[in-house]
Amino acid sequence: MSERSSPAEHTPLDASFASDNVSGVSEEIMTALTAQNSGSELPYGDDAGTATLRETAREHFGPQAEILPVFNGTGANVVSLQALLPRWGAAVCTQIAHVNTDEGGAPERLGLKLLPQPAEDGKLTPESIRAAAEDLDFVHAAQPLAVTLTQSTELGTLYSVEEIAALADEAHRLGMAVHMDGSRISNAAAALSTSLGELTTELGVDVLSLGGTKNGAMAAEAVVAIRPEKVPGLSFIRKYSMQLASKQRYVSAQLNALFGTDLWRRNAGHANAQAHRLGEQLAQIEGVSLARPTEVNAVFPEVPAQIAEAIQSRYLAHVWETAPSGNPVLRLMCSFSTEDAEIEALVRVAEGAARRA
Amino acid sequence: MSERSSPAEHTPLDASFASDNVSGVSEEIMTALTAQNSGSELPYGDDAGTATLRETAREHFGPQAEILPVFNGTGANVVSLQALLPRWGAAVCTQIAHVNTDEGGAPERLGLKLLPQPAEDGKLTPESIRAAAEDLDFVHAAQPLAVTLTQSTELGTLYSVEEIAALADEAHRLGMAVHMDGSRISNAAAALSTSLGELTTELGVDVLSLGGTKNGAMAAEAVVAIRPEKVPGLSFIRKYSMQLASKQRYVSAQLNALFGTDLWRRNAGHANAQAHRLGEQLAQIEGVSLARPTEVNAVFPEVPAQIAEAIQSRYLAHVWETAPSGNPVLRLMCSFSTEDAEIEALVRVAEGAARRA
Amino acid sequence: MSERSSPAEHTPLDASFASDNVSGVSEEIMTALTAQNSGSELPYGDDAGTATLRETAREHFGPQAEILPVFNGTGANVVSLQALLPRWGAAVCTQIAHVNTDEGGAPERLGLKLLPQPAEDGKLTPESIRAAAEDLDFVHAAQPLAVTLTQSTELGTLYSVEEIAALADEAHRLGMAVHMDGSRISNAAAALSTSLGELTTELGVDVLSLGGTKNGAMAAEAVVAIRPEKVPGLSFIRKYSMQLASKQRYVSAQLNALFGTDLWRRNAGHANAQAHRLGEQLAQIEGVSLARPTEVNAVFPEVPAQIAEAIQSRYLAHVWETAPSGNPVLRLMCSFSTEDAEIEALVRVAEGAARRA
Amino acid sequence: MSERSSPAEHTPLDASFASDNVSGVSEEIMTALTAQNSGSELPYGDDAGTATLRETAREHFGPQAEILPVFNGTGANVVSLQALLPRWGAAVCTQIAHVNTDEGGAPERLGLKLLPQPAEDGKLTPESIRAAAEDLDFVHAAQPLAVTLTQSTELGTLYSVEEIAALADEAHRLGMAVHMDGSRISNAAAALSTSLGELTTELGVDVLSLGGTKNGAMAAEAVVAIRPEKVPGLSFIRKYSMQLASKQRYVSAQLNALFGTDLWRRNAGHANAQAHRLGEQLAQIEGVSLARPTEVNAVFPEVPAQIAEAIQSRYLAHVWETAPSGNPVLRLMCSFSTEDAEIEALVRVAEGAARRA
Repeated sequence: MSERSSPAEHTPLDASFASDNVSGVSEEIMTALTAQNSGSELPYGDDAGTATLRETAREHFGPQAEILPVFNGTGANVVSLQALLPRWGAAVCTQIAHVNTDEGGAPERLGLKLLPQPAEDGKLTPESIRAAAEDLDFVHAAQPLAVTLTQSTELGTLYSVEEIAALADEAHRLGMAVHMDGSRISNAAAALSTSLGELTTELGVDVLSLGGTKNGAMAAEAVVAIRPEKVPGLSFIRKYSMQLASKQRYVSAQLNALFGTDLWRRNAGHANAQAHRLGEQLAQIEGVSLARPTEVNAVFPEVPAQIAEAIQSRYLAHVWETAPSGNPVLRLMCSFSTEDAEIEALVRVAEGAARRA
Repeated sequence: MSERSSPAEHTPLDASFASDNVSGVSEEIMTALTAQNSGSELPYGDDAGTATLRETAREHFGPQAEILPVFNGTGANVVSLQALLPRWGAAVCTQIAHVNTDEGGAPERLGLKLLPQPAEDGKLTPESIRAAAEDLDFVHAAQPLAVTLTQSTELGTLYSVEEIAALADEAHRLGMAVHMDGSRISNAAAALSTSLGELTTELGVDVLSLGGTKNGAMAAEAVVAIRPEKVPGLSFIRKYSMQLASKQRYVSAQLNALFGTDLWRRNAGHANAQAHRLGEQLAQIEGVSLARPTEVNAVFPEVPAQIAEAIQSRYLAHVWETAPSGNPVLRLMCSFSTEDAEIEALVRVAEGAARRA
Repeated sequence: MSERSSPAEHTPLDASFASDNVSGVSEEIMTALTAQNSGSELPYGDDAGTATLRETAREHFGPQAEILPVFNGTGANVVSLQALLPRWGAAVCTQIAHVNTDEGGAPERLGLKLLPQPAEDGKLTPESIRAAAEDLDFVHAAQPLAVTLTQSTELGTLYSVEEIAALADEAHRLGMAVHMDGSRISNAAAALSTSLGELTTELGVDVLSLGGTKNGAMAAEAVVAIRPEKVPGLSFIRKYSMQLASKQRYVSAQLNALFGTDLWRRNAGHANAQAHRLGEQLAQIEGVSLARPTEVNAVFPEVPAQIAEAIQSRYLAHVWETAPSGNPVLRLMCSFSTEDAEIEALVRVAEGAARRA
Repeated sequence: MSERSSPAEHTPLDASFASDNVSGVSEEIMTALTAQNSGSELPYGDDAGTATLRETAREHFGPQAEILPVFNGTGANVVSLQALLPRWGAAVCTQIAHVNTDEGGAPERLGLKLLPQPAEDGKLTPESIRAAAEDLDFVHAAQPLAVTLTQSTELGTLYSVEEIAALADEAHRLGMAVHMDGSRISNAAAALSTSLGELTTELGVDVLSLGGTKNGAMAAEAVVAIRPEKVPGLSFIRKYSMQLASKQRYVSAQLNALFGTDLWRRNAGHANAQAHRLGEQLAQIEGVSLARPTEVNAVFPEVPAQIAEAIQSRYLAHVWETAPSGNPVLRLMCSFSTEDAEIEALVRVAEGAARRA
């Protein structure tokens, strides 16, 4: 869904606002990688940096939490769900969940069934969980034994703390485990001014896919087992899911740089702030409005056709949907590295097109 | 097999000879990563560095070759075999193949059956392929439609050019595709003084797992489709196998640094040379002999018990097997970064123990 | 969905209208089984009866058709879809398709992804296929390379000949294969007064799940490869899908008895006719109407609460949905063995409750 | 292995001794099927016959035992192993185990890894289990958490009661579950003069694949959960493994006819006795000897070439192996229906060839 670009050939279009993974690596993280690079260390997580990371995870998610670094977000999600579900289980998700639409069927290839639910604003509700739960104990149905929610969502929306708590309570009451796809949880925590634990451990999340790459890492995500007793065999599952790094110290170094300091919040906060700035400036242009509120780092301007064309002649910018007015709605993403000058340049392009109209 | 360390807790033992993945990242590669780090680039392989990598791959493997970077060796192997085999297929391998013993069952989790064959020196033979082929067209058997060989092998041995050609010919004659697990193919090419293409394309290898990590990269391997017509759907398989990097430019940068120059050969040649040096020096010690010839970068000294103890009191060193004499055989690995002083230090430890005996 | 009964304990309720699989075995089929029972025959399909079945299949579906008997409908569907789809493929279906809701996740356990589409009346449309096709060539999405439609549908509705042709044309135009779940195709052909080939081969269906059990067999379904060139490896897939019968002659005997004569049409026609009779008689009762037209062998009477209670106190009868009026809609199924007296008995129960109201 | 017949086209050769699945259906079972055929019954196991079967299973296997009928032996094995193993598990078996060589890779297609061990006489030993157990807790290896043994074995040999007890004890001591492939357990119990429970429940078997088809049923096997607490989710696994029969009453009727009386023992005892008779008569012929003792219902005569040719010109008879003498060893199977006259006819063919030599 969100990354539906893949132009057939390399293009001179400016990709800066196409996604938050077009950015490079945060300077602090590159420094950490370079600093890591001396001497021999045991592979597969028996290194000093991974030991440090385990401490860091406990500080964020509680003393019982365990963390297993992985390569990418699909890996984190699929490892998490395999660990939470028995062979006969299924996971309730939204129809637009990344795990449903953008992971190439990875869950299913490894035997998981998803139970996609309609979700106008990208969010599951207790009602949608209850609807799925009607199949519990029905021998002909894959058993709905886990829920996976994305925070912030694929639509750039946020679950409130209360919404997550209500979802998790309902899921647990029905005997389902709770997974959070947190590839952008840093953006969510920054936007909601919470700690990471306040969005997860304290609300009943059992396992978290903790995102690093979109927030300035090179390639670093993790599965955080907030309730390790619910995921026996997790390290074996990571291994056969091809997500155990040989030189794991370099993955851990990235995560330590992000989460062992407040870099995660600074980077995500910057991305959010720049998105707000971009949205506000665009909304001041004649004919432009925001189709959706800017909740984290995605901006959804509804723009007249000639402005869309002007932007798309210079930038790689996805048409996300068509507004009831018939005008296109673009999706523009900001990242930890989005600079004021970049925003101003894009706004000028839009303003120019508005004036010429 | 080869990495059976995993001590329960962090240990002060020197890990330098425990494996070739205890080393850090080659300086040229770290420099390439740092240099990569500016500006926005499209994700998922639509970046300039990956375009360059495609050119590099064609130079090594022929103008028809395609390359898809992945995260690790298990990923490369399992993506390759899935692409080469239909749902009803099976892959002939040795009993000690990494894919059989050290990948956590990853092939099987994704539906592949392996057909492990006995292999004294770690190598498949045309005979073992013919034995497996007896099940062709037998409806009750998983169909042996691919062969996977490891070069250099898990036992530190080498297939000769002629041996690979004979295997590939026999496999093709029987209707089987040929995959090479080349996590250490650079060591093999350096030892045999061939190009990479001379070990693969020219001998009939259809798909190669091209190793980078053990030869100085941080986390970079690739699937090279030498005969792309045999692996339709390869990019989709990489995706659902959770091996498609978001910021792929950083994986490609590592591979470009290795394979766009002669770094791959220099690094591997150094590792091989240091292994020979280590083996020769150890073999001069009273009571020590080499249980296997040093063909690439693994040394297998058969040592009296007190020497084994002395080494293991200072170094993480696996007992690989017990010799007919009853003495332990250690496995010591050298890497691109093994220094003369490190070798001398280890040899001194062994000599000291020999003198005290 | 359709079979959501599974009461925890055995009940004295009359199950006659609960489903079309509560019936026994058609007398002609039982006779064929008994007649089959003499002498030795090769197992696994190398028997005389299976050879005859192959001839029968060619007569129905064309000289190129191949037939592989299997044990049950889930087996037929999952074998068919595995054979039609590469590892990276996905199958477009309706949200209420049996394969999506009532097969325990069997497709996913074997690596298939389904792409369920909304379908008011249980039917796919060319539009829904086109919507799914937007993901073709998008590397992040499981590839929509097959369509599976159920004829007659899980809602007791029928695709017209024109509708199937339009669906198949659109699917083929988009590069998708066409599978039909024909667990009740006999009912459909009887209702539409077509041959089996006129509903499949002539309309572009590539592979058919041919149903026998619901139409009077004991346990006999088949995969019919109408376009065998689209399903290489089919016999291997049947084997590993645990659907290859050892004493296959007994499965083939059932299918021969059904499809080697006009028993398939007589049985299905009877079930359809009895459903119409039941629907007409119920609709004459005060307060009762048919929520859906009776197209094959399912009747959906919307009944006042006290009539529903009266019926359910005597019969196992599913409440299918709640009508806009608030009244329950029951689902009553007729089968090859439904007798007039059974219908009259049920109608009397409903009439009695209506009078007492 | 054992069923490697599959001649390309139908042959006039007598198949009577080719396997024990070339026979028809035991008369008592056919009668039970016919008797079953009246009235409506709930599908999917909620029928009276299945309730009776549950009682029967408890009598054989203890009051805690649960039984789930399935369609065939591959289904029974693969359902059992999936239920006993977590996603990261693997099952120790012999290299010649049916589950390894003759099930088309069904275990692997559903994500299971097998760990085949050499086994001269078709039997696992405590030593082979301990060898596999070395990988326990090694993160790179699929975890050996179950053992599957076949009684009687694929080589027609028998585990003694003591051997099974020793295997099960060792497996349990190491944390592995114990599965028995009992497709011929009736032959084993008849040969060893034990009850079914004395070969399973009392020796520590956790789950049994209970065979019916080879012993006179049409298509009826079952998974018996002797320790149900070790296989939560079993009924869901049977469902998605496509082994839940719609009209299950007919499968249960077969199993009731076999195991609710002593038919299972009579049929198996007859097959065993006829095999002994056949073996003894063949061994009296000049030049013929038995390559393996006749332990159950398979006979392995080592015969001079001209006798082999004579037999094979009339009978479908597999050459099982070549004896050290260079003579072929045939495998001849007897079944519940093998008649004295059939044995005498085959012996006459062999005698005639011996005389002509």
